[in-house]
Amino acid sequence: MYINLNADIGESFGAYQIGDDSRLLDVVSSVNIACGFHAGDYRVMHHVVKQAADRGVRIGAHPGYPDLLGFGRRHIDMSADEIYQLMVYQIGALQAVCAVHHTTLYHVKPHGALYNLATKDEQVAHAVAQAIKDVDERLLLVGLANSSLLTAGQNVGLSVVSEVFADRTYTKDGLLTPRGDLNAVITDIATMQEQVRNLVFYDCVEATDGTVIDVKADTICFHGDGDQAYDYARLIRDRLQEEGVRIQASEPNG
Amino acid sequence: MYINLNADIGESFGAYQIGDDSRLLDVVSSVNIACGFHAGDYRVMHHVVKQAADRGVRIGAHPGYPDLLGFGRRHIDMSADEIYQLMVYQIGALQAVCAVHHTTLYHVKPHGALYNLATKDEQVAHAVAQAIKDVDERLLLVGLANSSLLTAGQNVGLSVVSEVFADRTYTKDGLLTPRGDLNAVITDIATMQEQVRNLVFYDCVEATDGTVIDVKADTICFHGDGDQAYDYARLIRDRLQEEGVRIQASEPNG
Amino acid sequence: MYINLNADIGESFGAYQIGDDSRLLDVVSSVNIACGFHAGDYRVMHHVVKQAADRGVRIGAHPGYPDLLGFGRRHIDMSADEIYQLMVYQIGALQAVCAVHHTTLYHVKPHGALYNLATKDEQVAHAVAQAIKDVDERLLLVGLANSSLLTAGQNVGLSVVSEVFADRTYTKDGLLTPRGDLNAVITDIATMQEQVRNLVFYDCVEATDGTVIDVKADTICFHGDGDQAYDYARLIRDRLQEEGVRIQASEPNG
Amino acid sequence: MYINLNADIGESFGAYQIGDDSRLLDVVSSVNIACGFHAGDYRVMHHVVKQAADRGVRIGAHPGYPDLLGFGRRHIDMSADEIYQLMVYQIGALQAVCAVHHTTLYHVKPHGALYNLATKDEQVAHAVAQAIKDVDERLLLVGLANSSLLTAGQNVGLSVVSEVFADRTYTKDGLLTPRGDLNAVITDIATMQEQVRNLVFYDCVEATDGTVIDVKADTICFHGDGDQAYDYARLIRDRLQEEGVRIQASEPNG
Repeated sequence: MYINLNADIGESFGAYQIGDDSRLLDVVSSVNIACGFHAGDYRVMHHVVKQAADRGVRIGAHPGYPDLLGFGRRHIDMSADEIYQLMVYQIGALQAVCAVHHTTLYHVKPHGALYNLATKDEQVAHAVAQAIKDVDERLLLVGLANSSLLTAGQNVGLSVVSEVFADRTYTKDGLLTPRGDLNAVITDIATMQEQVRNLVFYDCVEATDGTVIDVKADTICFHGDGDQAYDYARLIRDRLQEEGVRIQASEPNG
Repeated sequence: MYINLNADIGESFGAYQIGDDSRLLDVVSSVNIACGFHAGDYRVMHHVVKQAADRGVRIGAHPGYPDLLGFGRRHIDMSADEIYQLMVYQIGALQAVCAVHHTTLYHVKPHGALYNLATKDEQVAHAVAQAIKDVDERLLLVGLANSSLLTAGQNVGLSVVSEVFADRTYTKDGLLTPRGDLNAVITDIATMQEQVRNLVFYDCVEATDGTVIDVKADTICFHGDGDQAYDYARLIRDRLQEEGVRIQASEPNG
Repeated sequence: MYINLNADIGESFGAYQIGDDSRLLDVVSSVNIACGFHAGDYRVMHHVVKQAADRGVRIGAHPGYPDLLGFGRRHIDMSADEIYQLMVYQIGALQAVCAVHHTTLYHVKPHGALYNLATKDEQVAHAVAQAIKDVDERLLLVGLANSSLLTAGQNVGLSVVSEVFADRTYTKDGLLTPRGDLNAVITDIATMQEQVRNLVFYDCVEATDGTVIDVKADTICFHGDGDQAYDYARLIRDRLQEEGVRIQASEPNG
Repeated sequence: MYINLNADIGESFGAYQIGDDSRLLDVVSSVNIACGFHAGDYRVMHHVVKQAADRGVRIGAHPGYPDLLGFGRRHIDMSADEIYQLMVYQIGALQAVCAVHHTTLYHVKPHGALYNLATKDEQVAHAVAQAIKDVDERLLLVGLANSSLLTAGQNVGLSVVSEVFADRTYTKDGLLTPRGDLNAVITDIATMQEQVRNLVFYDCVEATDGTVIDVKADTICFHGDGDQAYDYARLIRDRLQEEGVRIQASEPNG
């Protein structure tokens, strides 16, 4: 039994520091690195790729909208074609940074508003998946469990990784409760641990309406920019290891 | 006998059109495509790579300073490390765009103020060359004839392409007369044709002081954003072909 | 009888030229100058303010979304508070440019996607109007005829200017036919002239369903970035003058 | 006897927090607010202007190069004309933010590489001073003691404020030891207090070569982005107040 723990890192920009990349790299098995559009820059990418490579942490791209001011978290109206193109650009940029550090890009997970849109908009989900496929068909696509994005990935022939959250509640449809809702976020570590246990051992979760739903858990996400990201990740990792779960990066299907 | 003709293209941005990419692609054998820092964006890159691939024109990267406002033409104070990193990022981005169009990046030529600095600053020249080498050692480095940049490329083991200009005069050191100088630019097509003839057939040029100097001519550059870029390129190409010179992309050394 | 003719200008950026500002300044009585967010930069603003001031053309601000890549034409999800704040910033920047040229900012018209949103979203319309009011209550607000934006302006106590278009068709609600629709744009100069005549003399227009609707016409807009903007503006201006209509900037109400 | 204490604040951007603006506002008598080019954005400006206005802290503009990635700290090659224009734009933007909060912009201090350049380049110093004068001649110009910038300000007729540093050493010319030098920065609070005492009471300082030089001290600067900015500011303020020095904003000359 094993699970992947992932974190979004490399979100600093110029003189601006955000997140605790170095510590998170010690606790997760894979990282999603910002590619200079919604966060990150070519210098930051260089440093975090080196750090990840040195520690043997799997590297993925975390492309987002071209919106540093909004940190990629707000929707920008654009065509599926444009989304395809911005994905290709950002993935390629990070691939080259990996190449100069003699390591390899392994997966791609869209960021923020783009991640959310790809969860429910099939055309966007397809554009995201196709971009990854066209750049390198060996790349894994990481997306929200039960979402359109994973379906789109499977449709184009990519290996997909089903992502779950320790600190977010689920609706009866198996998707996340919208962030605006009162009960969207879990702040209690005991409840998180319980949810993680259900996810890892039984691929299920108790939804906000009390029903138990199927949620495939390949990887658990910890946000790099949250103040407690490291602490929660560490606690959850320790508990999982005590229970005999190995922490390791996701592998391609089949 | 053959020569490469190259043009800087893909410099449009969003709603802003610059240059006449489509026509230039009909007359040159290789193009240097802006990578989204000083000019170009992921949409423009997508479209010009497709056009170049469709016509069999060799594709190169044209990375520059992160300065859209200055079009990469003004110096920004940064370390050689930072220049290495911005090169890697931009080359990678364009490589991925090439990949999705089933074509290959073939060469790299720095743009504007970065090109000029690499011509005379050995540390910067080395950073540029090393970045290209580290991303993909098969990439050709295109740089000013007789410059530090070509030397740096050879030092790191890259194949280098010696670039000359039809519309610029040369000093007795074999470098370009600075743009600010009165006699820096050739505006007369007959003089251009004469200079091109000397370059292509004899690898030499008459410098501004009247001496004849050695200038190895592997490729002749036409600026994509000049109003007459296309017309001059066409006239020079026609003359060369009449004299039996083939127009084709540069090949790796040895 | 008089009418104001206005054009959106100052949309160039760095090395990128767009529109024919100098010629448009000869034909209109007021201009809306981009403020560096969706288009324009501090250099361009400086030059076009000087040109406008020299010719006695009334100067207004044309603030937009912070999205140079999208030219301010695509919606970006943001709060009404943020819209208020980006309006204030841009208006202030242009005011200072006016000050150093010993001229005065006279009106404000939001650009592109922000203009469109303010036409129908009352909260956004209010934020736009309130921002203008708070910066300087003497500023005129220019907005689409019959839109929420004009109502919002009146509600906060601003003088408002009702804008109409020569080259766009109208729905029976008195608003513009959405650009995506087949019959949204008028390309025939005779039809434009007819529409302008109805607007200027009778404050009405024939809607796409054949009904005649009230549309108050204080100012007619010519887009600065259209290829034919100047030609159409000139033809329409000439006809109006032949019919005895004076072309002059809008004045505050009452 | 009184002295002004100033801090650079409002340097956050989007999701990126930098500095401890709220605490610094409690200890200084004036602030220099970033204007969205090298740091800050229209939202941040709005919030810090409101905070400063609420506490009665004098507000100044802190314009810099258009270089968020470099935080305005690296030189960008541009003409004095362009510097004039970027100053005007940024000052105007902040003026409008002040206006909507019913407060007034009081002074201007250029930031980072622009501050440094204006210290020694007379043409740039003049462009900076003239821009401030042309926007509003009542604005104070804050610049390094003994620098070209103060001279330029006096030449155009502005009231100038001579800025000194508690944590930087001085050369025998009365200017700052370059940051790269080993002994450029004072890290010991006792030495800072001693230097401040000499500056405030005697308008002099002991230079690195041991000579005592004249340095007019109108205001002492605390960098907003330093980790200990607040602590040092508080300690220095407390000591000054114990010795009977009032802490208050600078007033126009004469």
